Amino acid sequence: MSETATSRSTHVKSVLVLGGGGFIGASLRERLAHTGAAVAVVSRSAAVGLHANETWSTLDIRDTAAVARLLRPGQDVYHLVSDSNPSSSNWDVEVDIRDVVLPTTALIKAAVTAGVRKIVYVSSGGTVYGVPRSVPLNETAATDPISGYGVGKLSVEKYLAVFGQLHGLNYQIARVANPFGPRQRPNRGQGVVATLMYQALTGAPFQIWGDGSVARDFVAVDDVAAALVAMCDYEGPHRIMNVGSGQARSIASVARDIETVLGLEAHPVLRRESRGFDVPVNYLDIGRITSETPWRPRTEWMDGLAATAEWMRQAIRQGDV
Amino acid sequence: MSETATSRSTHVKSVLVLGGGGFIGASLRERLAHTGAAVAVVSRSAAVGLHANETWSTLDIRDTAAVARLLRPGQDVYHLVSDSNPSSSNWDVEVDIRDVVLPTTALIKAAVTAGVRKIVYVSSGGTVYGVPRSVPLNETAATDPISGYGVGKLSVEKYLAVFGQLHGLNYQIARVANPFGPRQRPNRGQGVVATLMYQALTGAPFQIWGDGSVARDFVAVDDVAAALVAMCDYEGPHRIMNVGSGQARSIASVARDIETVLGLEAHPVLRRESRGFDVPVNYLDIGRITSETPWRPRTEWMDGLAATAEWMRQAIRQGDV
Repeated sequence: MSETATSRSTHVKSVLVLGGGGFIGASLRERLAHTGAAVAVVSRSAAVGLHANETWSTLDIRDTAAVARLLRPGQDVYHLVSDSNPSSSNWDVEVDIRDVVLPTTALIKAAVTAGVRKIVYVSSGGTVYGVPRSVPLNETAATDPISGYGVGKLSVEKYLAVFGQLHGLNYQIARVANPFGPRQRPNRGQGVVATLMYQALTGAPFQIWGDGSVARDFVAVDDVAAALVAMCDYEGPHRIMNVGSGQARSIASVARDIETVLGLEAHPVLRRESRGFDVPVNYLDIGRITSETPWRPRTEWMDGLAATAEWMRQAIRQGDV
Repeated sequence: MSETATSRSTHVKSVLVLGGGGFIGASLRERLAHTGAAVAVVSRSAAVGLHANETWSTLDIRDTAAVARLLRPGQDVYHLVSDSNPSSSNWDVEVDIRDVVLPTTALIKAAVTAGVRKIVYVSSGGTVYGVPRSVPLNETAATDPISGYGVGKLSVEKYLAVFGQLHGLNYQIARVANPFGPRQRPNRGQGVVATLMYQALTGAPFQIWGDGSVARDFVAVDDVAAALVAMCDYEGPHRIMNVGSGQARSIASVARDIETVLGLEAHPVLRRESRGFDVPVNYLDIGRITSETPWRPRTEWMDGLAATAEWMRQAIRQGDV
């Protein structure tokens, strides 16, 4: 069998998901499982929840030769790898450069050489803009990150653009707000919803930085997965799209809504000193993606919290989190 | 002797020049030699033209521990290192990340730890902006580089900003246009003036990409050195300043002006295919630096060309270029 990617309409679409073992990766793979695509998953962790259409490679993207061998002409490549997090990347920024930025440039070159169809890159709407001059942030806003994590994301965006310009790479950049939902692990310095939910379910006090007025754009992980697929299908001129709910919710209000979902009353709060690297208010203008693609955020906030609670309860019961 | 940096007005100012063996470095060091500062020079090349106030360390900034040992509290640090050039950084972008961006993040951390007074970083007004939406470019213009070189420069700018925000690092970013003048070596893919001058002086035809209409902002290297010193002294709010002549000159007009300076008539031209990574017209708005500091571009264009010709003639005679 040596058909080219477009020779027959029955040709099976080839997809590569880098970082497919993570939180967003799991939702994306669930969605791709219904499309009939042949999906190669790359993850640092061992195979879990493998779908029938999937093959799994346990490897780090720093093994650039191994990743390159998985690339195919005409393939869709989703890049979901980030291994540092905003709270750890504010001093040892070189870790992110070495472990993510450098291997990603190798991937980009290999993708050009292999002739992949498109790279969909998950960037960070919560960090690449830095302190907003005004909200909601649209894609043309200034990009002045206040974390090494944000600079790493922005650098990769810029390298994608260079290879697009000079080598014809087809790519799409999703600036994703704060995703939440089932499978998000608490206590990792990211994932406010997961962390607060875990605290509520385990009887620990809510730990809230500052007065809880810091506000973020929380977007359901299922909606993020759908947005990535929509962006992969998109053929228009815009390379960068915000992916969010388009609304700001304060941490304090999230805590209150979690109380409501769980039927708790006045769950105790432990206030911690506010963190210097927190942007006060950040939410995304999602006008571009909603006008350029059929995508809309479809998950109702309280439904998303309820689904998160359900997953987290089971994960706690099974000792998974 | 163990005085703190500010304990006495007679205290000798400590300066570190990274990349001091290069083209801009040599001009900067000449200027610093007149200030009485104690200057530590770091260069990959062996000591050359050492001034009385200087010590020289031949080392690569990738030797981050050795560089860190040269840092002092209260020191002014000029960072002039770039080891790739725009024409070689459009595929193997990882070289620039590994050799410049990563070591620079180590330097930044070490500078914070050592308590240096300020880092003056030489960025690239010719590449960080990419294709201008309008000219002249001011410092708030979009930064969409079309070369890996430009992305590397922009990444370092952003890391400086992160460490400024989170760790109080004092820094200044000079987005330098196309410097020209004595000591610029021809035929390195940068330095159009030097390359055309060399061609004219050696009887080779001018090699001009495309129709010669590509226009750049050429700034005399002495003016660049003066701008860096002015920015080091500057105490105001602006972290980023363009450093250029504020004028655009086409490559074709530069060739004509070189003919005039050398008294040549109709020097032959060899046209080469235009390069995809050339921005058509780029010149910088220098309103910010001229209003915020006493600096002005002082070198007359034709005088700068004449000085370049004089240096180049001698360098050719001595077999140095």
